[in-house]
Amino acid sequence: MIMSYLQRYSVAIATSLGAMALATPAFADEVGVHGVFILNTLLFLIGGFLVMFMACGFCMLEAGLVRAKNTTTQLTKNMGLFSFAAMGYYVLGYNLMYPLGNWAIDGVLSGLGSVVAVLEPVGAGADAVDDLSYASTGSDFFFQLMFCAATASIVSGAVAERIKIWPFFIFTIVLTAVIYPLQASWKWGGGFLDAAGFLDFAGSSVVHSVGGWAALTGAIILGPRIGKYVNGRVVPMPGANLPLATLGTFILWLGWFGFNGGSQLAMGTIGDAADISRIFANTNAAAAMGSIAALALSQLLYRKIDLTMVLNGALAGLVSITAEPLTPSLGMASLIGGIGGVIVVLAVPYLDKLKIDDVVGAIPVHLLAGIWGTIAVVLTNADATITAQLYGIVVIGAFTVIASSVVWLALSWTVGIRVEENDEIAGLDATELGMDAYPEFSKSA
Amino acid sequence: MIMSYLQRYSVAIATSLGAMALATPAFADEVGVHGVFILNTLLFLIGGFLVMFMACGFCMLEAGLVRAKNTTTQLTKNMGLFSFAAMGYYVLGYNLMYPLGNWAIDGVLSGLGSVVAVLEPVGAGADAVDDLSYASTGSDFFFQLMFCAATASIVSGAVAERIKIWPFFIFTIVLTAVIYPLQASWKWGGGFLDAAGFLDFAGSSVVHSVGGWAALTGAIILGPRIGKYVNGRVVPMPGANLPLATLGTFILWLGWFGFNGGSQLAMGTIGDAADISRIFANTNAAAAMGSIAALALSQLLYRKIDLTMVLNGALAGLVSITAEPLTPSLGMASLIGGIGGVIVVLAVPYLDKLKIDDVVGAIPVHLLAGIWGTIAVVLTNADATITAQLYGIVVIGAFTVIASSVVWLALSWTVGIRVEENDEIAGLDATELGMDAYPEFSKSA
Amino acid sequence: MIMSYLQRYSVAIATSLGAMALATPAFADEVGVHGVFILNTLLFLIGGFLVMFMACGFCMLEAGLVRAKNTTTQLTKNMGLFSFAAMGYYVLGYNLMYPLGNWAIDGVLSGLGSVVAVLEPVGAGADAVDDLSYASTGSDFFFQLMFCAATASIVSGAVAERIKIWPFFIFTIVLTAVIYPLQASWKWGGGFLDAAGFLDFAGSSVVHSVGGWAALTGAIILGPRIGKYVNGRVVPMPGANLPLATLGTFILWLGWFGFNGGSQLAMGTIGDAADISRIFANTNAAAAMGSIAALALSQLLYRKIDLTMVLNGALAGLVSITAEPLTPSLGMASLIGGIGGVIVVLAVPYLDKLKIDDVVGAIPVHLLAGIWGTIAVVLTNADATITAQLYGIVVIGAFTVIASSVVWLALSWTVGIRVEENDEIAGLDATELGMDAYPEFSKSA
Repeated sequence: MIMSYLQRYSVAIATSLGAMALATPAFADEVGVHGVFILNTLLFLIGGFLVMFMACGFCMLEAGLVRAKNTTTQLTKNMGLFSFAAMGYYVLGYNLMYPLGNWAIDGVLSGLGSVVAVLEPVGAGADAVDDLSYASTGSDFFFQLMFCAATASIVSGAVAERIKIWPFFIFTIVLTAVIYPLQASWKWGGGFLDAAGFLDFAGSSVVHSVGGWAALTGAIILGPRIGKYVNGRVVPMPGANLPLATLGTFILWLGWFGFNGGSQLAMGTIGDAADISRIFANTNAAAAMGSIAALALSQLLYRKIDLTMVLNGALAGLVSITAEPLTPSLGMASLIGGIGGVIVVLAVPYLDKLKIDDVVGAIPVHLLAGIWGTIAVVLTNADATITAQLYGIVVIGAFTVIASSVVWLALSWTVGIRVEENDEIAGLDATELGMDAYPEFSKSA
Repeated sequence: MIMSYLQRYSVAIATSLGAMALATPAFADEVGVHGVFILNTLLFLIGGFLVMFMACGFCMLEAGLVRAKNTTTQLTKNMGLFSFAAMGYYVLGYNLMYPLGNWAIDGVLSGLGSVVAVLEPVGAGADAVDDLSYASTGSDFFFQLMFCAATASIVSGAVAERIKIWPFFIFTIVLTAVIYPLQASWKWGGGFLDAAGFLDFAGSSVVHSVGGWAALTGAIILGPRIGKYVNGRVVPMPGANLPLATLGTFILWLGWFGFNGGSQLAMGTIGDAADISRIFANTNAAAAMGSIAALALSQLLYRKIDLTMVLNGALAGLVSITAEPLTPSLGMASLIGGIGGVIVVLAVPYLDKLKIDDVVGAIPVHLLAGIWGTIAVVLTNADATITAQLYGIVVIGAFTVIASSVVWLALSWTVGIRVEENDEIAGLDATELGMDAYPEFSKSA
Repeated sequence: MIMSYLQRYSVAIATSLGAMALATPAFADEVGVHGVFILNTLLFLIGGFLVMFMACGFCMLEAGLVRAKNTTTQLTKNMGLFSFAAMGYYVLGYNLMYPLGNWAIDGVLSGLGSVVAVLEPVGAGADAVDDLSYASTGSDFFFQLMFCAATASIVSGAVAERIKIWPFFIFTIVLTAVIYPLQASWKWGGGFLDAAGFLDFAGSSVVHSVGGWAALTGAIILGPRIGKYVNGRVVPMPGANLPLATLGTFILWLGWFGFNGGSQLAMGTIGDAADISRIFANTNAAAAMGSIAALALSQLLYRKIDLTMVLNGALAGLVSITAEPLTPSLGMASLIGGIGGVIVVLAVPYLDKLKIDDVVGAIPVHLLAGIWGTIAVVLTNADATITAQLYGIVVIGAFTVIASSVVWLALSWTVGIRVEENDEIAGLDATELGMDAYPEFSKSA
């Protein structure tokens, strides 16, 4: 199958090492061809379950940052979006993402059967796997699916507390079956952005900015929550459960080792194993420094540390390092992550000034730090050019904004995307779902 | 040791691949014998820690679905049951489960020393491990223990909010030291159900239905909570903390990759690695479609999505695919899981009609979806026969119902299993433990 | 680099196996040199992300055991301490920990450049990695960092509800950049405690007692919370969220498989894989029996099971087995862990009698069970002597007490470490951070 070849091209280092392993005769102390396949597959499976757990992290983060009256809805949205993403990516997204160009012919024209993702047969031998030098298709599908689902999780937080639940699910299906895979194919499917030299190791742009752009268009088209901006004043609407938000952040931090480490796409050589280790260490350093930067800056600006800033600072550090977690030194990784943390602290009030109501801070974290991370590749990776990076940022941004807007507006003009005013004030849990998240804890608000 | 040989026989595909690896001379590109042993062991360790985390998932799910006044008790029961299961399985269960037939001679007659689980010596060489073509006994014990503990976790939710804590622990010990291992030996220990062609890859019946049957007998013998069924009306008793229940579901979903993936029992060949990948992808698809089915059906039936149905739908999808996560295509896995989700939505009110009070929905999820999953094996696995599947379901069900009932009734007639009426109304946390789970959140109920 | 050689010396069994692999010609069925490197690296990465998640476990445990009015502060402290630990260990700690003796020359004298941790180059070949027979430096750094951070997490709980946040962070930086690495170098860096035959496999003393001693000095110097000890009576101050504390305990239990299992430091031979399996199984048995012991003893002593004792009993079991998780049988591991559980139940009220106010029980769990575990090595490891064990306990204890006291007192006499009386009564969330953890759940306290 073509996808794994295309994918390998997009990661220069992995490719060259992989090619060496194929080209040279196997030395006695190297891992054999089968061992490489198994280790690469194992990397995807471990990376995949870690990224899957990020769906839980997003859910807890968002459920902790909304008010109690909208918590069940937020939980339902996150459990649902992950499920719909799994189906959307399976039915259409996976094969839309990879065999770009060929897809129109092999996919649509040859019928639905070749659109749906298909895995290797049971008990595949060396001749039955798609690419013996890569990994199993099943593990690749599993891993890539989790990235697609993360995009939808990002949107969920920004549009919380006022969106209707079914239109949100419809948006999720379009995002995960079409929008995400299409633009991802331009880079990771070996498409024109990849050919243009655009670099995005694990998806600061391809995943996080895409989620961020979709969140931004959603937040703008929906408008702010009732009572959020009154007479030029920003009314705080504090999250109901900060331990939950902190739990979510820790889970996301954990999952990110799979996100970035798995994106090495190979674990069968010394070089790959050492590279994954670099990525783990750099990812952690960027998160830590993002957290510290937000902690220190919120202390300086507001005289008090703001926990939600610290959480989002850590996440922004993680997003920032995602476009290039391999080439930086630990010091550079810390710097890149730290700047991500600064971006969040500065951007959150600025978005409020623009009356863009992003309930959990998803836009600063995933869009702005995602753009920063994509640009920052040029600081440490000699293969990156600022032109190519900006080109990729603009192309992905323009496409996602247009495509998302079309879907949001189409939903808005047909079924409607925003709940009634009274329902929003009463809370979505009572009106949309009829189920309270904390039925016994009496509310002061 | 005989157990690993017996166990391998029960997984036809793994066996045939494993046999090939032993029979043919090692090709240069295959993983050597030691590498296979290490990779198999690693699979059990990763799978094992993921399934261990399911104990946390069950605990959070159940703690979120009980009322606040019974939450500390539920937490204590889950922490305790996992601990007692670990001891019960170590002291008796592990060796009861595997060397069936031989056990009576090697085990009991040769004294207690050979009943207790024993691991390899420290720093075992090739000649000191039990089966060089399999995995370390320590990793096998660790992995199998977690399955045994899951059975006890299933019971815990169904009998919540009215059971006395110590009788519950006694039941747990008998379940994990005797009931679970005995019936598991009939299939996974190479016993008569295995010989009869009964297939259950990762335990839709052997684990989940067993937990479900034990839960059902417990719920019936205990009777419903006071005030649950009044004048033919079902009184809702909503869970106190839905974020906690959602967290538990996500953790269970995560852990299930270890549950089903680890049950491949081998990771040392291309075919095994690709098979584990299939299992991961299928497991996720079944959970997603179970969740979607419950979400859509609760919308259709009740006009509103029911989050607890969505959570249990995902879990039912997971249980449904557990008997055969390997052979289905992604589409078939989705279908099998989706039907599991439908079963839950239909069965929950039906159990209420029967006045069987299952606090968290464990019986629909683990028993009914477990039966469905066991039957569904015939849809995709040519080696399965409906006769053998039904035979296994009935034998395991009859045994577990009888054995569980004996224990529940014996406890009931001696120490008693249900708390006093006043204590139940006041809440078990106050009366059984004297410790409030949320002492500062004032209750409206 | 010298560190990995030194480190290997300290684990006798791992070394001897590793040496064999190097000394003998590679047999066809053994894993080749590259495979060993990859598997060892993978062990550190998996172990590392599991131990990283323990930071989340500590955070949830502590956030659940403090009162609601101090919860945001506890969350902020835990997120911050992990971040500061990551930086402190990177900038100074890692290289301070390993090349002991050489450090003064290679480190300080040759300038800052060689003090900061440096990883392998990208895509390292066999000649570019530090030690081909060990693992990648990146994975070693990642793994060791998480141990260092755990030390700081331990302190955080004991000094909760009255410490100023910035002085706590300063203490964390000194602890993770200097105090922890210095004493760790004496054992794991191949220093004089290692030479003296002191054994501490995964850090009952090097990690847990160090955290415990630092916590003890902090708790004494801070003094008890206002209202904790009144007229010779101990006033209970129950934690606000026991599900959170239970979640944290389960996460710690999960992470401990990485903590102890990863400390085998090698996974490339049959013996190492079987040993890691033993460690997993023993670690679980010790936790289970610690939990059961505390459960049973609290029932006997107080007529009611105390959930917080059960949680701390499990953790004490884990700490107890950490100094030697490999050599015990499952039965001995259970016994060692069970005694840990007993220690906790007896020590908690004793500390209260001494008016040492340890909010979460960190001192019994990490210090006392840590000492017990370090002594218990002599029960199962023939290489251990009681003299060497006591020597290590005393040296590490004396150093940590002195160093911690100096830092706590210096902070106390300069910036102050304790919040104002009124602020403590009002709660740190309102006064230190201005952010409520549960703004909508009205307080009864």
